Amino acid sequence: MTGALPPGSTIGILGSGQLGRMLAVAAAQLGFRVHVYGDAPGPAFDVVAAKTVGAYEDLGKITAFAESVDVVTYEFENVPLGAAAAAAAIKPVRPGPRALEVAQDRLVEKRFLSEIGLPVAPFAGVDSLDDLEDALATIGAPAILKTCRLGYDGKGQARITSAEQPGWALEAIGHAPAVLEGFVAFEYEISVLCVRGLNGTTVIYDVPLNKHQDGILDTSTVPAPISDAVRERACAMATRIAEALDYVGVLAVEMFYAGADQQEPLVINEIAPRVHNSGHWTLDACGISQFENHIRAVAGWPLGSVSRHSNAVMTNLIGVDVQNWAALATEPGACLHIYGKNDPRPGRKMGHVTHLKALTGR
Amino acid sequence: MTGALPPGSTIGILGSGQLGRMLAVAAAQLGFRVHVYGDAPGPAFDVVAAKTVGAYEDLGKITAFAESVDVVTYEFENVPLGAAAAAAAIKPVRPGPRALEVAQDRLVEKRFLSEIGLPVAPFAGVDSLDDLEDALATIGAPAILKTCRLGYDGKGQARITSAEQPGWALEAIGHAPAVLEGFVAFEYEISVLCVRGLNGTTVIYDVPLNKHQDGILDTSTVPAPISDAVRERACAMATRIAEALDYVGVLAVEMFYAGADQQEPLVINEIAPRVHNSGHWTLDACGISQFENHIRAVAGWPLGSVSRHSNAVMTNLIGVDVQNWAALATEPGACLHIYGKNDPRPGRKMGHVTHLKALTGR
Repeated sequence: MTGALPPGSTIGILGSGQLGRMLAVAAAQLGFRVHVYGDAPGPAFDVVAAKTVGAYEDLGKITAFAESVDVVTYEFENVPLGAAAAAAAIKPVRPGPRALEVAQDRLVEKRFLSEIGLPVAPFAGVDSLDDLEDALATIGAPAILKTCRLGYDGKGQARITSAEQPGWALEAIGHAPAVLEGFVAFEYEISVLCVRGLNGTTVIYDVPLNKHQDGILDTSTVPAPISDAVRERACAMATRIAEALDYVGVLAVEMFYAGADQQEPLVINEIAPRVHNSGHWTLDACGISQFENHIRAVAGWPLGSVSRHSNAVMTNLIGVDVQNWAALATEPGACLHIYGKNDPRPGRKMGHVTHLKALTGR
Repeated sequence: MTGALPPGSTIGILGSGQLGRMLAVAAAQLGFRVHVYGDAPGPAFDVVAAKTVGAYEDLGKITAFAESVDVVTYEFENVPLGAAAAAAAIKPVRPGPRALEVAQDRLVEKRFLSEIGLPVAPFAGVDSLDDLEDALATIGAPAILKTCRLGYDGKGQARITSAEQPGWALEAIGHAPAVLEGFVAFEYEISVLCVRGLNGTTVIYDVPLNKHQDGILDTSTVPAPISDAVRERACAMATRIAEALDYVGVLAVEMFYAGADQQEPLVINEIAPRVHNSGHWTLDACGISQFENHIRAVAGWPLGSVSRHSNAVMTNLIGVDVQNWAALATEPGACLHIYGKNDPRPGRKMGHVTHLKALTGR
């Protein structure tokens, strides 16, 4: 427990969204105070002791924020590296800046994963039409062109179904630096929620099966219908990434499951250096949630048990879905979470609901 | 759902302690904003969108507070009736002022319970030495003299073991208006956590067995080792009280269990018109906690399930107990809650820990 922050210490969180909100509540449960820094007021502002509104580029404000807290963490992977460095000059930033560097750029991320020997889809960097044509010649169509930076929930992507005249795809992503990814046939997506402590200990939640709709996570179900061997392989991959990054906190690793008949049944899609939507079920189905374990890790505490007392299906409430709250509130076994956002725009994550069921054997 | 407050509404809470803190977090989970009013900053202030420090006698501030929220509830039964009335003139106050009136005065409470036909210990009001001697002549010793108002956690009480020269007991409680209670032989204490909705629906959590140390709750264990018949009788008593008070929210009823061989195995000790320490295990052992169900009730929502996915033992962390946080954080099945108070004074509730175990049959 050397270096563990005692209750009463202040956790600083960069980002004021719903992930920051749920992190803040978990921190409060352990007796921490929370200071959130966001570029605009957000859902986290309603549940914290202190808040700052400022640009992430305002390094003076970032420095003052870091001075007011005991450790800094973040709820999103696009924290500018300059902000992370300014904070790290004052107080520990966990997970460390290397995780941000890797996760902010798809090309850097793919190269990193390849270099440590993990399976990813065939990929190539694309900065021009020439690059794209070369990449398509190697990888073939169908393939997906994705911006290296700032894409999420299906944004910044173009699916290329024919290798002929692919220039439109560069248009579609605004000619940003990009990576072309070969198409991976898969049965479904899973994710691994790995928590690594300050002392290098790792624990991993049970693996959910994730389904998407319109490029946005729709449901996460535990347990996923995978064999013990596949689960172990998935966990070993996530652990390898966490160790290679000397990671502290929750690391989410999305993987495609290609089927039991494949020589390599798993291909890594992407990583997120933060708590993850596909782990929200841990709030209700586990004694200790991903949010609490992230806080424990960044505070230098021993990690908590990841054991699960119930099976669970987490369903996101996207846009106007949240207006169904009155009916959801009466569903048996439903645990309702609403993020306190005012405007239910299409595609906006407004809340989630987790349905608990008694444990069954796998 | 007529009259239900939609997410985004503001819940007002009178009281800034740990109960207010856990209520505020539960409200936030449902998408509500929270405004806490306290006579001093307290643990709830760290997790809310808005806070006011003011005396409960400052009816101007209470009125302004009520105007800023959509419904008012409270975390302690000693809210001055004047404050409750001032708030009720502006917005609904739930539970209603009648519950406060009854719960604030032991004599009023005992008379109310007797009048609705529920078993309480023999009692008599005591305003003078003459009263006390008369009461002892009827009730006999041993007996307990308790102030009518403002006693809690064993304070404001004197145990009289002999009927002779009882004047010291009046001294001990500062000659405050009091009630003499006959001593009840009991095997253990249980409590019933009853939730009544705005539409009169009632749900009741499983009944915990409570153990005290130095007059302060030490542990609550579910399930309590009582028969189904006793459990049903306990729940029926709590429901009767809630209905008689036209109650909205969580009502806690503490009862003595005198043993299976008694004609009347249960005697009501006292009621608390609020969420209760003996219900803290619901945070970790149920999909929906007492705090969420209280918020649902006062917001006019349908009540949530009270079903329990795990057995549980809740242990209070009193005073310096909380300094054991590092060891508690590693105990298997332990869910740790620390209230964010600075000074671990003897007798002060600093946090609690709930140990979960897999469900077993009763």
